[in-house]
Amino acid sequence: MGRRSLHTADELRELIVQASTDLIHESGLVGLSAREIARRIDYSPGTLYNSFDNLDDLILTIEGRLLDRLLDELDTVPGDSEAHERVYRMADCYLNFAGGNPRLWNLLFEHHIPVSQTLPDWYRQKLDALASRFEQVLRPLSKGLGDDEARRSARVLWSSVHGISSLAVADKLSIVSAEEAPVLMRNLVGTYLAGLEARCSTAG
Amino acid sequence: MGRRSLHTADELRELIVQASTDLIHESGLVGLSAREIARRIDYSPGTLYNSFDNLDDLILTIEGRLLDRLLDELDTVPGDSEAHERVYRMADCYLNFAGGNPRLWNLLFEHHIPVSQTLPDWYRQKLDALASRFEQVLRPLSKGLGDDEARRSARVLWSSVHGISSLAVADKLSIVSAEEAPVLMRNLVGTYLAGLEARCSTAG
Repeated sequence: MGRRSLHTADELRELIVQASTDLIHESGLVGLSAREIARRIDYSPGTLYNSFDNLDDLILTIEGRLLDRLLDELDTVPGDSEAHERVYRMADCYLNFAGGNPRLWNLLFEHHIPVSQTLPDWYRQKLDALASRFEQVLRPLSKGLGDDEARRSARVLWSSVHGISSLAVADKLSIVSAEEAPVLMRNLVGTYLAGLEARCSTAG
Repeated sequence: MGRRSLHTADELRELIVQASTDLIHESGLVGLSAREIARRIDYSPGTLYNSFDNLDDLILTIEGRLLDRLLDELDTVPGDSEAHERVYRMADCYLNFAGGNPRLWNLLFEHHIPVSQTLPDWYRQKLDALASRFEQVLRPLSKGLGDDEARRSARVLWSSVHGISSLAVADKLSIVSAEEAPVLMRNLVGTYLAGLEARCSTAG
């Protein structure tokens, strides 16, 4: 028999998110079930559905927290560092974050929302915030390209940084080993920025 | 009650791979179970384990086939096209392949082999073959960089092409929309190759 009325709605929601995050850290998405979460927090499985619509809703919440933590990490890169250096540091930060949270990171790919659902606005806003971080950092390095192309370049750099970071924690695509990843990341940023410079000087 | 002795071992293996691939196409990894595969081919679930060690073994086989098909696609890019054009076409090919097989593509990330297992040699060889395709195509464009750096650059380009392709079929990271993906891919290849050229002329 589960406990009752020991926690407020907010506290209960927090307990569920914590227990689920721990479960994913330990054994990935396969380890996550309403029954197991309930067992850990000592409530009945039905209690979960007072706090979350369903498991998808819970998982999106966990992923949203992951994106928040990533944003916080990226914001530790000093805004007044030299423009190229700032991009290098942001890319390293992204890579280290993925490497430090491999199972939660994989969740971004492993978990799918039902086709009938769209991503909630609060989730999209976090992705937009990430996009704007990359736009900001590339702005001084893409002068003369035009706003649209500068914005596209930020997205390309983000996708590529994301690609290397994700491959470094993937176990079935040994394109990028965890050891080699930092060197590949430097090659990506260095070469992409050199290309951007060449394109800007042609455009200018 | 399942059928018996209607197929040779090879035919049965083929039937199982086909039925499983169909199941993944329809509903992703969650739809895959020994029971459902067996039902489709009208054998008993136990029959699967005469052909495959376990579901992981079966899934790796399916993924190996996917990589074979990708290699075949990449090999349709004419070897005698202009060097830059060849990279553009290879990247487009990669993107289209992922877009045409979204659920099987996602499987590369969704399915994890047990931590205790290493990737079998036959699977690694396919990844090496993919790596060598990217090395070949970049070779004429990375002269003067040295073999190690040229090889690293091929891996970086591959990771980035893979990143954009995967994000275009992901549903939870709207970094790259399917519509915008071809434009971003052109930006990636154009900018990366411009950067490579700048780095080669500095090195040369």
